[in-house]
Amino acid sequence: MMDTHKKTLIVFSGDLDRAVAAFIIANGAAAMGDEVTMFFTFWGLSILRKPHPPSHKRSFLQSLFGRMMASGPKQLGISKMNFGGLGAAMLRRVMQQQNASSLEELMTTAKEQGIKMLACTMSMDVMGFRPEDLIDGLDFVGVASYLAEADEANVNLFV
Amino acid sequence: MMDTHKKTLIVFSGDLDRAVAAFIIANGAAAMGDEVTMFFTFWGLSILRKPHPPSHKRSFLQSLFGRMMASGPKQLGISKMNFGGLGAAMLRRVMQQQNASSLEELMTTAKEQGIKMLACTMSMDVMGFRPEDLIDGLDFVGVASYLAEADEANVNLFV
Amino acid sequence: MMDTHKKTLIVFSGDLDRAVAAFIIANGAAAMGDEVTMFFTFWGLSILRKPHPPSHKRSFLQSLFGRMMASGPKQLGISKMNFGGLGAAMLRRVMQQQNASSLEELMTTAKEQGIKMLACTMSMDVMGFRPEDLIDGLDFVGVASYLAEADEANVNLFV
Repeated sequence: MMDTHKKTLIVFSGDLDRAVAAFIIANGAAAMGDEVTMFFTFWGLSILRKPHPPSHKRSFLQSLFGRMMASGPKQLGISKMNFGGLGAAMLRRVMQQQNASSLEELMTTAKEQGIKMLACTMSMDVMGFRPEDLIDGLDFVGVASYLAEADEANVNLFV
Repeated sequence: MMDTHKKTLIVFSGDLDRAVAAFIIANGAAAMGDEVTMFFTFWGLSILRKPHPPSHKRSFLQSLFGRMMASGPKQLGISKMNFGGLGAAMLRRVMQQQNASSLEELMTTAKEQGIKMLACTMSMDVMGFRPEDLIDGLDFVGVASYLAEADEANVNLFV
Repeated sequence: MMDTHKKTLIVFSGDLDRAVAAFIIANGAAAMGDEVTMFFTFWGLSILRKPHPPSHKRSFLQSLFGRMMASGPKQLGISKMNFGGLGAAMLRRVMQQQNASSLEELMTTAKEQGIKMLACTMSMDVMGFRPEDLIDGLDFVGVASYLAEADEANVNLFV
Protein backbone atom coordinates (compact mmCIF):
# COMPACT_ATOMS: atom_id res chain seq x y z
CA MET A 1 0.00 0.00 0.00
CA MET A 2 1.21 3.44 -0.90
CA ASP A 3 1.64 6.01 1.83
CA THR A 4 2.08 9.42 0.25
CA HIS A 5 3.47 10.83 3.46
CA LYS A 6 6.62 8.91 3.98
CA LYS A 7 10.13 9.60 2.69
CA THR A 8 13.35 7.61 2.93
CA LEU A 9 16.95 8.59 2.32
CA ILE A 10 19.93 6.28 2.03
CA VAL A 11 22.90 8.24 3.34
CA PHE A 12 25.81 6.45 1.71
CA SER A 13 28.13 9.44 1.53
CA GLY A 14 30.19 10.73 4.42
CA ASP A 15 30.76 14.16 2.90
CA LEU A 16 29.69 17.22 4.87
CA ASP A 17 27.94 18.81 1.88
CA ARG A 18 25.93 15.69 1.04
CA ALA A 19 25.11 15.07 4.70
CA VAL A 20 23.81 18.63 5.04
CA ALA A 21 21.70 18.19 1.91
CA ALA A 22 20.26 14.91 3.22
CA PHE A 23 19.29 16.42 6.58
CA ILE A 24 17.81 19.56 5.00
CA ILE A 25 15.58 17.40 2.81
CA ALA A 26 14.71 15.10 5.72
CA ASN A 27 13.92 17.97 8.10
CA GLY A 28 11.94 19.79 5.42
CA ALA A 29 9.79 16.74 4.82
CA ALA A 30 9.29 16.14 8.55
CA ALA A 31 8.29 19.78 9.00
CA MET A 32 5.62 19.23 6.35
CA GLY A 33 4.20 16.34 8.38
CA ASP A 34 5.90 13.48 6.57
CA GLU A 35 7.27 10.40 8.25
CA VAL A 36 10.99 10.24 7.41
CA THR A 37 13.50 7.40 7.64
CA MET A 38 17.24 7.78 7.06
CA PHE A 39 19.36 4.67 6.46
CA PHE A 40 23.07 5.29 7.08
CA THR A 41 25.46 2.95 5.32
CA PHE A 42 29.14 2.80 4.34
CA TRP A 43 30.79 6.26 4.68
CA GLY A 44 27.48 7.64 5.90
CA LEU A 45 28.16 5.93 9.23
CA SER A 46 30.96 8.40 9.88
CA ILE A 47 28.33 11.12 10.36
CA LEU A 48 26.98 9.14 13.31
CA ARG A 49 30.28 8.40 15.05
CA LYS A 50 30.98 9.70 18.52
CA PRO A 51 34.21 11.72 18.63
CA HIS A 52 35.56 9.65 21.54
CA PRO A 53 34.02 6.18 21.50
CA PRO A 54 35.01 3.52 24.04
CA SER A 55 37.93 1.49 22.73
CA HIS A 56 37.39 -2.13 21.73
CA LYS A 57 39.12 -4.83 19.78
CA ARG A 58 39.13 -4.55 16.02
CA SER A 59 41.06 -6.16 13.22
CA PHE A 60 44.04 -4.28 11.82
CA LEU A 61 42.13 -3.21 8.71
CA GLN A 62 39.10 -2.14 10.73
CA SER A 63 41.33 0.07 12.91
CA LEU A 64 42.85 1.54 9.78
CA PHE A 65 39.42 2.30 8.29
CA GLY A 66 38.31 3.65 11.67
CA ARG A 67 41.26 5.98 11.89
CA MET A 68 40.90 7.21 8.33
CA MET A 69 37.17 7.88 8.50
CA ALA A 70 35.79 11.01 10.11
CA SER A 71 34.48 10.77 13.67
CA GLY A 72 31.28 12.73 13.61
CA PRO A 73 30.11 15.91 11.86
CA LYS A 74 33.02 18.14 12.86
CA GLN A 75 35.56 16.00 11.01
CA LEU A 76 33.70 15.48 7.74
CA GLY A 77 35.28 16.71 4.53
CA ILE A 78 33.39 17.96 1.49
CA SER A 79 32.97 16.13 -1.80
CA LYS A 80 34.72 18.78 -3.91
CA MET A 81 37.59 21.17 -3.18
CA ASN A 82 38.16 19.81 0.31
CA PHE A 83 41.90 20.59 0.27
CA GLY A 84 42.61 18.59 3.40
CA GLY A 85 39.66 19.98 5.31
CA LEU A 86 40.04 23.65 4.33
CA GLY A 87 37.04 23.48 1.99
CA ALA A 88 34.92 21.90 4.70
CA ALA A 89 35.93 24.61 7.17
CA MET A 90 35.07 27.25 4.55
CA LEU A 91 31.66 25.70 3.96
CA ARG A 92 30.93 25.52 7.69
CA ARG A 93 31.97 29.16 8.12
CA VAL A 94 29.99 30.52 5.18
CA MET A 95 26.90 28.57 6.28
CA GLN A 96 27.25 30.15 9.71
CA GLN A 97 27.60 33.64 8.19
CA GLN A 98 24.39 33.04 6.25
CA ASN A 99 22.59 31.79 9.37
CA ALA A 100 22.12 28.35 7.83
CA SER A 101 21.90 25.56 10.40
CA SER A 102 25.07 23.57 10.97
CA LEU A 103 25.04 19.81 10.45
CA GLU A 104 25.02 19.32 14.22
CA GLU A 105 21.95 21.56 14.51
CA LEU A 106 20.26 19.79 11.60
CA MET A 107 20.88 16.45 13.33
CA THR A 108 19.39 17.72 16.59
CA THR A 109 16.33 18.99 14.72
CA ALA A 110 16.00 15.61 13.00
CA LYS A 111 15.89 13.88 16.38
CA GLU A 112 13.41 16.40 17.76
CA GLN A 113 11.17 15.88 14.76
CA GLY A 114 11.19 12.12 15.30
CA ILE A 115 13.05 11.21 12.13
CA LYS A 116 13.90 7.52 12.27
CA MET A 117 17.64 6.94 11.93
CA LEU A 118 18.79 3.46 10.92
CA ALA A 119 22.41 2.30 10.95
CA CYS A 120 23.34 -0.48 8.51
CA THR A 121 24.67 -3.41 10.54
CA MET A 122 26.48 -4.99 7.60
CA SER A 123 28.51 -1.81 7.07
CA MET A 124 29.13 -1.59 10.81
CA ASP A 125 30.59 -5.11 10.73
CA VAL A 126 32.83 -4.26 7.79
CA MET A 127 34.04 -0.98 9.32
CA GLY A 128 34.33 -2.49 12.79
CA PHE A 129 31.84 -0.11 14.41
CA ARG A 130 29.78 -1.18 17.42
CA PRO A 131 26.55 0.45 18.60
CA GLU A 132 28.45 2.23 21.39
CA ASP A 133 30.70 3.90 18.78
CA LEU A 134 27.71 5.72 17.32
CA ILE A 135 25.37 8.39 18.67
CA ASP A 136 22.30 7.43 20.69
CA GLY A 137 18.83 6.93 19.30
CA LEU A 138 19.69 4.75 16.30
CA ASP A 139 18.12 1.48 15.21
CA PHE A 140 20.53 -1.18 14.00
CA VAL A 141 19.15 -2.98 10.99
CA GLY A 142 19.93 -4.66 7.69
CA VAL A 143 19.00 -3.70 4.15
CA ALA A 144 15.68 -5.60 4.40
CA SER A 145 14.45 -3.11 7.01
CA TYR A 146 15.37 -0.21 4.76
CA LEU A 147 13.53 -1.83 1.87
CA ALA A 148 10.42 -2.36 4.00
CA GLU A 149 10.45 1.36 4.83
CA ALA A 150 11.04 2.35 1.21
CA ASP A 151 8.10 0.21 0.12
CA GLU A 152 5.82 2.42 2.21
CA ALA A 153 7.33 5.71 1.01
CA ASN A 154 6.59 7.84 -2.03
CA VAL A 155 10.02 9.50 -2.24
CA ASN A 156 13.23 7.48 -1.86
CA LEU A 157 16.63 9.04 -2.43
CA PHE A 158 20.20 7.74 -2.46
CA VAL A 159 22.59 10.43 -1.28
CA MET B 1 -2.42 11.86 -4.98
CA MET B 2 -0.11 9.94 -7.25
CA ASP B 3 0.59 11.32 -10.69
CA THR B 4 2.36 8.64 -12.67
CA HIS B 5 3.58 11.13 -15.23
CA LYS B 6 5.81 13.35 -13.24
CA LYS B 7 9.53 13.03 -12.51
CA THR B 8 11.86 15.07 -10.32
CA LEU B 9 15.63 15.21 -10.15
CA ILE B 10 17.73 16.85 -7.47
CA VAL B 11 20.90 18.01 -9.20
CA PHE B 12 23.34 18.28 -6.30
CA SER B 13 26.47 17.54 -8.29
CA GLY B 14 28.32 20.06 -10.43
CA ASP B 15 30.18 17.43 -12.46
CA LEU B 16 29.82 17.45 -16.23
CA ASP B 17 29.19 13.70 -16.42
CA ARG B 18 26.49 13.74 -13.75
CA ALA B 19 24.90 16.88 -15.21
CA VAL B 20 24.76 15.24 -18.64
CA ALA B 21 23.17 12.12 -17.11
CA ALA B 22 20.57 14.22 -15.28
CA PHE B 23 19.58 16.12 -18.42
CA ILE B 24 19.45 12.98 -20.56
CA ILE B 25 17.06 11.37 -18.08
CA ALA B 26 15.02 14.58 -17.77
CA ASN B 27 14.80 15.13 -21.53
CA GLY B 28 13.98 11.47 -22.12
CA ALA B 29 11.10 11.64 -19.67
CA ALA B 30 9.81 14.91 -21.11
CA ALA B 31 9.96 13.43 -24.62
CA MET B 32 7.73 10.61 -23.34
CA GLY B 33 5.16 13.15 -22.20
CA ASP B 34 6.14 13.37 -18.55
CA GLU B 35 6.17 16.54 -16.53
CA VAL B 36 9.73 17.01 -15.24
CA THR B 37 11.15 19.19 -12.47
CA MET B 38 14.86 19.67 -11.76
CA PHE B 39 15.95 21.14 -8.44
CA PHE B 40 19.51 22.51 -8.54
CA THR B 41 21.29 22.76 -5.21
CA PHE B 42 24.86 23.11 -3.90
CA TRP B 43 27.42 22.38 -6.65
CA GLY B 44 24.56 21.82 -9.08
CA LEU B 45 24.09 25.59 -9.17
CA SER B 46 27.39 25.93 -11.04
CA ILE B 47 25.70 24.36 -14.09
CA LEU B 48 23.31 27.32 -14.16
CA ARG B 49 25.87 30.11 -13.75
CA LYS B 50 26.34 32.69 -16.45
CA PRO B 51 29.97 32.89 -17.61
CA HIS B 52 30.07 36.66 -17.05
CA PRO B 53 27.54 37.68 -14.41
CA PRO B 54 27.19 41.30 -13.22
CA SER B 55 29.53 41.92 -10.30
CA HIS B 56 28.06 42.48 -6.84
CA LYS B 57 29.18 42.51 -3.26
CA ARG B 58 29.89 39.20 -1.63
CA SER B 59 31.66 38.10 1.52
CA PHE B 60 35.28 36.98 1.21
CA LEU B 61 34.33 33.31 1.50
CA GLN B 62 31.51 33.66 -1.00
CA SER B 63 33.92 35.21 -3.52
CA LEU B 64 36.33 32.37 -2.91
CA PHE B 65 33.63 29.76 -3.48
CA GLY B 66 32.45 31.70 -6.51
CA ARG B 67 35.91 31.76 -8.03
CA MET B 68 36.54 28.10 -7.35
CA MET B 69 33.24 26.84 -8.72
CA ALA B 70 32.67 26.44 -12.44
CA SER B 71 30.77 29.19 -14.26
CA GLY B 72 28.39 27.30 -16.50
CA PRO B 73 28.61 24.10 -18.53
CA LYS B 74 31.87 24.84 -20.35
CA GLN B 75 33.88 24.97 -17.12
CA LEU B 76 32.53 21.87 -15.42
CA GLY B 77 34.94 19.07 -14.54
CA ILE B 78 34.08 15.39 -14.44
CA SER B 79 33.67 13.25 -11.33
CA LYS B 80 36.50 10.85 -12.21
CA MET B 81 39.80 11.30 -14.02
CA ASN B 82 39.32 15.03 -14.49
CA PHE B 83 43.07 15.80 -14.40
CA GLY B 84 42.55 19.54 -14.14
CA GLY B 85 39.92 19.65 -16.85
CA LEU B 86 41.60 17.35 -19.38
CA GLY B 87 39.14 14.53 -18.65
CA ALA B 88 36.20 16.87 -19.09
CA ALA B 89 37.58 18.09 -22.42
CA MET B 90 38.05 14.47 -23.51
CA LEU B 91 34.48 13.61 -22.55
CA ARG B 92 33.11 16.63 -24.42
CA ARG B 93 35.16 15.74 -27.50
CA VAL B 94 34.24 12.06 -27.57
CA MET B 95 30.55 12.91 -27.07
CA GLN B 96 30.80 15.25 -30.04
CA GLN B 97 32.49 12.55 -32.16
CA GLN B 98 29.62 10.19 -31.32
CA ASN B 99 27.03 12.84 -32.18
CA ALA B 100 25.77 12.89 -28.60
CA SER B 101 24.24 16.19 -27.55
CA SER B 102 26.47 18.49 -25.52
CA LEU B 103 25.34 19.67 -22.09
CA GLU B 104 24.53 23.09 -23.57
CA GLU B 105 22.32 21.45 -26.22
CA LEU B 106 20.68 19.24 -23.59
CA MET B 107 19.91 22.33 -21.51
CA THR B 108 18.38 24.10 -24.51
CA THR B 109 16.23 21.05 -25.24
CA ALA B 110 15.15 20.94 -21.59
CA LYS B 111 13.93 24.52 -21.83
CA GLU B 112 12.18 23.87 -25.13
CA GLN B 113 10.43 20.86 -23.63
CA GLY B 114 9.16 22.95 -20.73
CA ILE B 115 11.16 21.22 -18.02
CA LYS B 116 10.77 23.19 -14.80
CA MET B 117 14.13 24.28 -13.40
CA LEU B 118 14.28 25.28 -9.75
CA ALA B 119 17.29 26.91 -8.08
CA CYS B 120 17.68 26.32 -4.34
CA THR B 121 17.66 29.71 -2.61
CA MET B 122 19.36 28.44 0.54
CA SER B 123 22.34 27.23 -1.49
CA MET B 124 22.35 30.49 -3.42
CA ASP B 125 22.62 32.39 -0.15
CA VAL B 126 25.49 30.21 1.04
CA MET B 127 27.39 30.46 -2.24
CA GLY B 128 26.58 34.14 -2.67
CA PHE B 129 24.73 33.74 -5.97
CA ARG B 130 21.96 36.13 -6.95
CA PRO B 131 19.26 35.45 -9.54
CA GLU B 132 21.12 37.61 -12.07
CA ASP B 133 24.19 35.35 -11.74
CA LEU B 134 22.22 32.43 -13.12
CA ILE B 135 20.65 31.71 -16.50
CA ASP B 136 17.15 32.90 -17.30
CA GLY B 137 13.99 30.89 -16.87
CA LEU B 138 14.61 29.56 -13.35
CA ASP B 139 12.30 29.56 -10.35
CA PHE B 140 13.92 30.43 -7.04
CA VAL B 141 12.57 28.25 -4.28
CA GLY B 142 13.33 26.40 -1.06
CA VAL B 143 13.35 22.71 -0.29
CA ALA B 144 9.62 22.74 0.54
CA SER B 145 8.81 23.51 -3.09
CA TYR B 146 10.97 20.62 -4.24
CA LEU B 147 9.22 18.31 -1.78
CA ALA B 148 5.80 19.41 -3.00
CA GLU B 149 6.86 18.51 -6.56
CA ALA B 150 8.34 15.18 -5.47
CA ASP B 151 5.09 14.31 -3.69
CA GLU B 152 3.33 14.43 -7.05
CA ALA B 153 5.97 12.45 -8.92
CA ASN B 154 6.46 8.71 -9.34
CA VAL B 155 10.23 8.85 -9.98
CA ASN B 156 12.52 11.01 -7.85
CA LEU B 157 16.29 10.88 -8.21
CA PHE B 158 19.21 12.49 -6.39
CA VAL B 159 22.09 13.04 -8.81
CA MET C 1 -0.23 1.72 -12.89
CA MET C 2 1.74 1.32 -9.72
CA ASP C 3 3.43 -1.98 -9.06
CA THR C 4 4.59 -1.98 -5.46
CA HIS C 5 6.94 -4.86 -6.12
CA LYS C 6 9.40 -3.45 -8.56
CA LYS C 7 12.62 -1.55 -7.93
CA THR C 8 15.08 0.13 -10.28
CA LEU C 9 18.61 1.34 -9.74
CA ILE C 10 20.64 3.53 -12.07
CA VAL C 11 24.25 2.51 -11.57
CA PHE C 12 26.14 5.60 -12.76
CA SER C 13 29.15 5.17 -10.53
CA GLY C 14 32.04 2.83 -11.24
CA ASP C 15 33.29 2.80 -7.65
CA LEU C 16 33.59 -0.52 -5.84
CA ASP C 17 31.86 0.75 -2.71
CA ARG C 18 28.89 2.18 -4.60
CA ALA C 19 28.64 -0.90 -6.82
CA VAL C 20 28.56 -3.13 -3.74
CA ALA C 21 25.84 -0.96 -2.19
CA ALA C 22 23.77 -1.09 -5.39
CA PHE C 23 23.98 -4.90 -5.62
CA ILE C 24 23.22 -5.39 -1.91
CA ILE C 25 20.07 -3.30 -2.27
CA ALA C 26 19.14 -5.04 -5.53
CA ASN C 27 19.74 -8.54 -4.16
CA GLY C 28 17.91 -7.70 -0.93
CA ALA C 29 14.86 -6.55 -2.86
CA ALA C 30 14.94 -9.59 -5.17
CA ALA C 31 15.20 -11.88 -2.11
CA MET C 32 12.02 -10.23 -0.81
CA GLY C 33 10.22 -11.14 -4.04
CA ASP C 34 10.60 -7.84 -5.85
CA GLU C 35 11.28 -7.50 -9.54
CA VAL C 36 14.54 -5.54 -9.88
CA THR C 37 16.08 -3.71 -12.83
CA MET C 38 19.57 -2.20 -12.86
CA PHE C 39 20.49 0.32 -15.55
CA PHE C 40 24.27 0.71 -15.96
CA THR C 41 25.45 3.96 -17.49
CA PHE C 42 28.66 6.01 -17.74
CA TRP C 43 31.29 4.74 -15.25
CA GLY C 44 28.86 2.06 -14.12
CA LEU C 45 29.63 0.22 -17.36
CA SER C 46 33.13 -0.53 -16.07
CA ILE C 47 31.57 -2.94 -13.54
CA LEU C 48 30.29 -4.99 -16.48
CA ARG C 49 33.48 -5.09 -18.53
CA LYS C 50 35.19 -8.36 -19.28
CA PRO C 51 38.85 -8.33 -18.17
CA HIS C 52 40.04 -9.46 -21.62
CA PRO C 53 37.56 -8.40 -24.28
CA PRO C 54 38.15 -9.09 -27.98
CA SER C 55 40.02 -6.18 -29.55
CA HIS C 56 38.24 -3.93 -32.02
CA LYS C 57 38.70 -0.57 -33.63
CA ARG C 58 38.05 2.48 -31.53
CA SER C 59 38.83 6.16 -31.82
CA PHE C 60 41.91 7.46 -30.02
CA LEU C 61 39.82 9.02 -27.24
CA GLN C 62 37.72 5.90 -26.84
CA SER C 63 40.88 3.81 -26.42
CA LEU C 64 42.14 6.28 -23.85
CA PHE C 65 38.88 6.12 -21.88
CA GLY C 66 38.90 2.37 -22.24
CA ARG C 67 42.40 2.06 -20.87
CA MET C 68 41.73 4.43 -17.98
CA MET C 69 38.48 2.82 -16.88
CA ALA C 70 38.45 -0.33 -14.78
CA SER C 71 37.85 -3.65 -16.56
CA GLY C 72 35.43 -5.45 -14.31
CA PRO C 73 34.95 -5.73 -10.53
CA LYS C 74 38.55 -6.62 -9.65
CA GLN C 75 39.90 -3.33 -10.97
CA LEU C 76 37.38 -0.94 -9.45
CA GLY C 77 38.59 1.73 -7.06
CA ILE C 78 36.60 3.18 -4.17
CA SER C 79 35.02 6.62 -4.00
CA LYS C 80 37.05 7.77 -0.98
CA MET C 81 40.58 7.01 0.20
CA ASN C 82 41.40 4.86 -2.81
CA PHE C 83 45.12 5.71 -2.78
CA GLY C 84 45.79 4.15 -6.17
CA GLY C 85 43.81 1.01 -5.43
CA LEU C 86 45.08 0.38 -1.89
CA GLY C 87 41.78 1.49 -0.35
CA ALA C 88 39.84 -0.78 -2.69
CA ALA C 89 42.09 -3.73 -1.78
CA MET C 90 41.56 -2.93 1.90
CA LEU C 91 37.79 -2.83 1.46
CA ARG C 92 37.78 -6.14 -0.41
CA ARG C 93 39.93 -7.74 2.26
CA VAL C 94 37.93 -6.48 5.23
CA MET C 95 34.67 -7.53 3.55
CA GLN C 96 36.15 -11.01 3.13
CA GLN C 97 37.22 -11.11 6.78
CA GLN C 98 33.67 -10.23 7.79
CA ASN C 99 32.22 -12.89 5.47
CA ALA C 100 30.45 -10.24 3.40
CA SER C 101 29.91 -11.27 -0.21
CA SER C 102 32.37 -9.88 -2.73
CA LEU C 103 31.11 -7.81 -5.66
CA GLU C 104 31.68 -10.80 -7.96
CA GLU C 105 29.54 -12.99 -5.68
CA LEU C 106 26.88 -10.30 -5.45
CA MET C 107 26.78 -10.10 -9.24
CA THR C 108 26.41 -13.88 -9.55
CA THR C 109 23.55 -13.82 -7.02
CA ALA C 110 21.92 -11.01 -8.96
CA LYS C 111 21.94 -13.12 -12.09
CA GLU C 112 20.66 -16.18 -10.25
CA GLN C 113 17.82 -14.12 -8.81
CA GLY C 114 16.81 -12.95 -12.26
CA ILE C 115 17.67 -9.29 -11.77
CA LYS C 116 17.38 -7.54 -15.11
CA MET C 117 20.62 -5.81 -16.07
CA LEU C 118 20.47 -3.10 -18.72
CA ALA C 119 23.51 -1.48 -20.34
CA CYS C 120 23.06 2.08 -21.63
CA THR C 121 23.80 2.06 -25.36
CA MET C 122 24.46 5.80 -25.54
CA SER C 123 27.21 5.51 -22.92
CA MET C 124 28.57 2.45 -24.73
CA ASP C 125 28.87 4.50 -27.92
CA VAL C 126 30.66 7.32 -26.11
CA MET C 127 33.06 4.99 -24.29
CA GLY C 128 33.56 2.80 -27.36
CA PHE C 129 32.25 -0.38 -25.73
CA ARG C 130 30.59 -3.10 -27.78
CA PRO C 131 28.29 -5.80 -26.43
CA GLU C 132 31.15 -8.34 -26.65
CA ASP C 133 33.24 -6.15 -24.29
CA LEU C 134 30.71 -6.66 -21.52
CA ILE C 135 29.59 -9.70 -19.54
CA ASP C 136 26.83 -11.94 -20.83
CA GLY C 137 23.17 -11.66 -19.97
CA LEU C 138 22.73 -7.92 -20.47
CA ASP C 139 20.07 -6.08 -22.41
CA PHE C 140 21.30 -3.14 -24.50
CA VAL C 141 18.88 -0.25 -24.29
CA GLY C 142 18.46 3.52 -24.19
CA VAL C 143 17.18 5.78 -21.45
CA ALA C 144 13.57 5.34 -22.62
CA SER C 145 13.69 1.68 -21.61
CA TYR C 146 14.97 2.61 -18.16
CA LEU C 147 12.19 5.18 -17.80
CA ALA C 148 9.56 2.63 -18.79
CA GLU C 149 10.86 0.32 -16.04
CA ALA C 150 11.00 3.13 -13.49
CA ASP C 151 7.39 4.05 -14.28
CA GLU C 152 6.34 0.61 -13.04
CA ALA C 153 8.51 0.68 -9.92
CA ASN C 154 7.86 2.10 -6.46
CA VAL C 155 11.52 2.62 -5.52
CA ASN C 156 13.99 4.18 -7.97
CA LEU C 157 17.52 5.07 -6.94
CA PHE C 158 20.46 6.78 -8.63
CA VAL C 159 23.73 5.36 -7.33
